[in-house]
Amino acid sequence: MQHTLPIITVNGIIDAQVSPLDRGFTYGDGVFETCRMTKAIIPLWSFHKQRLLNSCGKLAIPVDINVIEAQLANIILKVNESDKNNAIVKIILTRGPVGRGYSVSTLVTPTIVIGVFPATQHPEFYFSEGVNVRLCDLRLGCNTSLAGIKHLNRLEQVLARAEWNDKEIAEGILLDGNGNLIEAVFSNVFLVKNDELVTPDLSEAGVAGVMRRFIIERVAPKAGINITVRKCTLDDLVSSDEVFLCNSNYGIWPVKTFIAGQDYKFSVGPLTLQLQNYLQQLLS
Amino acid sequence: MQHTLPIITVNGIIDAQVSPLDRGFTYGDGVFETCRMTKAIIPLWSFHKQRLLNSCGKLAIPVDINVIEAQLANIILKVNESDKNNAIVKIILTRGPVGRGYSVSTLVTPTIVIGVFPATQHPEFYFSEGVNVRLCDLRLGCNTSLAGIKHLNRLEQVLARAEWNDKEIAEGILLDGNGNLIEAVFSNVFLVKNDELVTPDLSEAGVAGVMRRFIIERVAPKAGINITVRKCTLDDLVSSDEVFLCNSNYGIWPVKTFIAGQDYKFSVGPLTLQLQNYLQQLLS
Repeated sequence: MQHTLPIITVNGIIDAQVSPLDRGFTYGDGVFETCRMTKAIIPLWSFHKQRLLNSCGKLAIPVDINVIEAQLANIILKVNESDKNNAIVKIILTRGPVGRGYSVSTLVTPTIVIGVFPATQHPEFYFSEGVNVRLCDLRLGCNTSLAGIKHLNRLEQVLARAEWNDKEIAEGILLDGNGNLIEAVFSNVFLVKNDELVTPDLSEAGVAGVMRRFIIERVAPKAGINITVRKCTLDDLVSSDEVFLCNSNYGIWPVKTFIAGQDYKFSVGPLTLQLQNYLQQLLS
Repeated sequence: MQHTLPIITVNGIIDAQVSPLDRGFTYGDGVFETCRMTKAIIPLWSFHKQRLLNSCGKLAIPVDINVIEAQLANIILKVNESDKNNAIVKIILTRGPVGRGYSVSTLVTPTIVIGVFPATQHPEFYFSEGVNVRLCDLRLGCNTSLAGIKHLNRLEQVLARAEWNDKEIAEGILLDGNGNLIEAVFSNVFLVKNDELVTPDLSEAGVAGVMRRFIIERVAPKAGINITVRKCTLDDLVSSDEVFLCNSNYGIWPVKTFIAGQDYKFSVGPLTLQLQNYLQQLLS
């Protein structure tokens, strides 16, 4: 039987719930992936899988990827044909339900939640004409133990996203406590400078996005564009020739206006367009 | 009917579960309190309540304290008489179940989880002779928006607690990324220097514990001891005359050994003993 979206399973069981003792609930002790599904597959699954395994390794959460992939295959069977071409798949893996206290027992059974949600409806002009973004007041904390991981401790993103209600603003830019440019609330940031790409180093803060890695390892090389990962400042951003955001859901959005005290304007430049085109080719 | 511990309610319903879309589960978007119950009451409830309200205010989570107190009274009725004199009550309040994405709808119904757990069994000599503590490798991130709040983003504590297995070590000391002394994994830290108390400023990192506040506002004044809240370093700690830890569960533990490259020894000093005595008087 096929279902309308959302379809959510907990440990493979549709519409099941989660224990209030689950460490995902009590401590945010887990990781997640948000993936785009098209033609009944997740095009960047190998990258999502590697990040999930890597994140679980850093947090010492045991993970059997075969179990996750079996549950994922099972839930996709339940999705209507019309939804299979355009949906969002979210996978949450937590350390599982245990007693009180921070100490980690060696006998944990991780909890796997998989949800298939309707695709997010973003305006087409975000892609073609670019987006307005603002500088968030919130500053990300630096923690080398957690940097890069897409873990469930997301209060910084919740507070940053709550800073604006203006529907004309699509995203918010985040700096860390030392003033380094890190990312956007649900996106990574790339700068174009002198026909080369620069993206912030994420060794102290930020989420190392799957699309960021795909652009660094596949899209930019295919386009023959050099790329540097380094510490970046706000000045680096405002002095860029082009700026774009990316994530594995929407792909690449050019930034047209950056609002930070004053408005900084950017045009949808040639390198951004080139990368959008190559990305479409690689994912089609 | 009375139950054996633990007894856990979700929105007032015993043994209910939590939605996998609850923002407590998906983002750690909520707060908690861990309280000691004795003689069927929570002695420091007014302090817990104020912190809960204050934390929810900072995160813009709507909270009706009357609902929480009614559920709390109800669950306490279900606790066996023998357990009522010594148990742990944990209250979790989240922003509630909503859809995907960081954005906060104005129409949220917070989720309230209340659990009554058996009291933690700590050795009596932790109280009388002191504890061994170690310096954790993990450094806390600084974030003025989240500092002080007892929120559900606790991966730092999970990772710090996972650093040691040695049962002789009771707690771990945490510095922030700038090397400031902040707290311990599940305790606050006080230093005795020249017959005065010093405790770390928590405006950039750490949890502002209920027992910390009770000591600052009630216990130290009753004992006539001056207290200073300021930035502290590791040098401040190792050069102290006495060091103690506190939380609202166990009260005050003297530190006898601090392990940080070398072993620093402290005796259970007169001010720590005095504060332990006054604390017992105030809570009896």
